[in-house]
Amino acid sequence: MNVAIAGLGLIGGSLALALKERHHVTGFDTDPNARESARAAGIDVVETLEALLPADAVIVATPIHAVVPTLEALALRAGKAVLLDVASVRAPVEAFAATAPAGCRIVGLHPMAGRSGAGFGAASAELLMHRPFLVVPTARSDTAAMALAGTLARDAGGEVTVCSAAQHDRIVAVLSAVPLTFAAALALTGAETVDGNLASLSGPGFGDSTRLALTSPDLGSAMLLANAENVRAALARARTILDEVDRAIASGDAAALNAILERAAQARRALS
Amino acid sequence: MNVAIAGLGLIGGSLALALKERHHVTGFDTDPNARESARAAGIDVVETLEALLPADAVIVATPIHAVVPTLEALALRAGKAVLLDVASVRAPVEAFAATAPAGCRIVGLHPMAGRSGAGFGAASAELLMHRPFLVVPTARSDTAAMALAGTLARDAGGEVTVCSAAQHDRIVAVLSAVPLTFAAALALTGAETVDGNLASLSGPGFGDSTRLALTSPDLGSAMLLANAENVRAALARARTILDEVDRAIASGDAAALNAILERAAQARRALS
Repeated sequence: MNVAIAGLGLIGGSLALALKERHHVTGFDTDPNARESARAAGIDVVETLEALLPADAVIVATPIHAVVPTLEALALRAGKAVLLDVASVRAPVEAFAATAPAGCRIVGLHPMAGRSGAGFGAASAELLMHRPFLVVPTARSDTAAMALAGTLARDAGGEVTVCSAAQHDRIVAVLSAVPLTFAAALALTGAETVDGNLASLSGPGFGDSTRLALTSPDLGSAMLLANAENVRAALARARTILDEVDRAIASGDAAALNAILERAAQARRALS
Repeated sequence: MNVAIAGLGLIGGSLALALKERHHVTGFDTDPNARESARAAGIDVVETLEALLPADAVIVATPIHAVVPTLEALALRAGKAVLLDVASVRAPVEAFAATAPAGCRIVGLHPMAGRSGAGFGAASAELLMHRPFLVVPTARSDTAAMALAGTLARDAGGEVTVCSAAQHDRIVAVLSAVPLTFAAALALTGAETVDGNLASLSGPGFGDSTRLALTSPDLGSAMLLANAENVRAALARARTILDEVDRAIASGDAAALNAILERAAQARRALS
């Protein structure tokens, strides 16, 4: 099919590279350098957002604050194109979709993937391979649009999970946003304590634990603020567990500590 | 030189494999299976702790609770052998060394390395390559013993940092113990929230953030309890930063949030 992508950064660029194996991909980015890089990588690039249409699907992969304005700009003239967006917080898109022009179709398509780099230069098809893609219906979704989202997710190498916007935002708060806040707190505590010697003193465990602190502060703030209620609830829950750990350490309760660490190890083994 | 290693698990086994390129290594483990595996990997294995002596150096790499008893068993008959130990909490060894027989020499040699596996089967020389080795003097250290510890650390592929027991225990609380508690809290919060779907929903960020939750509960509890004061102080400091983050989210203060995340990213960039 004809797939258009608005925003050729890490995620949009990776989608373009992954999908062009099976589809005709057209891309646009407001940044001329991103357009140039994408063109050099064999993507068919256009010079305006509007020139992405007509298409069978348009994937909006801009920074999070630009997702709703971009969907808005596309909605009136989308025609038969299904509008998809990769926003990592669904509530704002859900609110927009509820009032969007009748006849337009909007579906969330959020790949749970990332790395510390940014921009088209960091993009690669491999980034998306075997990653969970959360497919999220809106008030402007229909069966065909949902099926199209699933097809694109699978064609990009991902594995599809369908969930509601509310479920999505709860999941992302726990699996992405709170881990970011923990990584930031650990990185700052570590840097304060070892005073410039972090690189020479820390092992791979600390490196893994703090990797998400490399998230761009703009993206990080947007993820935390746009999803504030879920993030604060998940943060409170995680801190309750830290309270339990702290109490067990304070009272020298090895059995309680072992029980918490054993449950945590069991939970984590599901991933490995 | 003749290097003996008591305890052929992940760390002791890795030291044996790394050091046998340049030294004659003799190993012992209380577990016959570990002895058999080490022998099959070309290590010269003996059947009793005492048979490790005489040697130029004995590295005690047992589980943490057995380190002081093993040093105690070796101290009286060590002769000219320098006793080293890999304990990840120094205070108990420091206390023992202060009352150890005059003439014996004891130095801490703690490689900041690990992985989720355990036992000789998970050991490899590569685990230690370019890792920080914290060399920690005790009341029973002298210049020659410290130099020997540095030589062995470098010969095992590590990079040496010398620090006091107090500094060591503060550093390890921040760089290993608190990250473990954070990983455990995240893994448990994630598992509760997504109810059995952690593997299908989480991306690499969550996986990295929770990898330390795979630490063996026994090792984890020992690290937390034997170093309780430092761990609780570091945990409290990290939680103060989470308070700041939570307040900034609650008040929608994007500038404050950006500033915290930018400082954290800067701290973390020192590692990558």
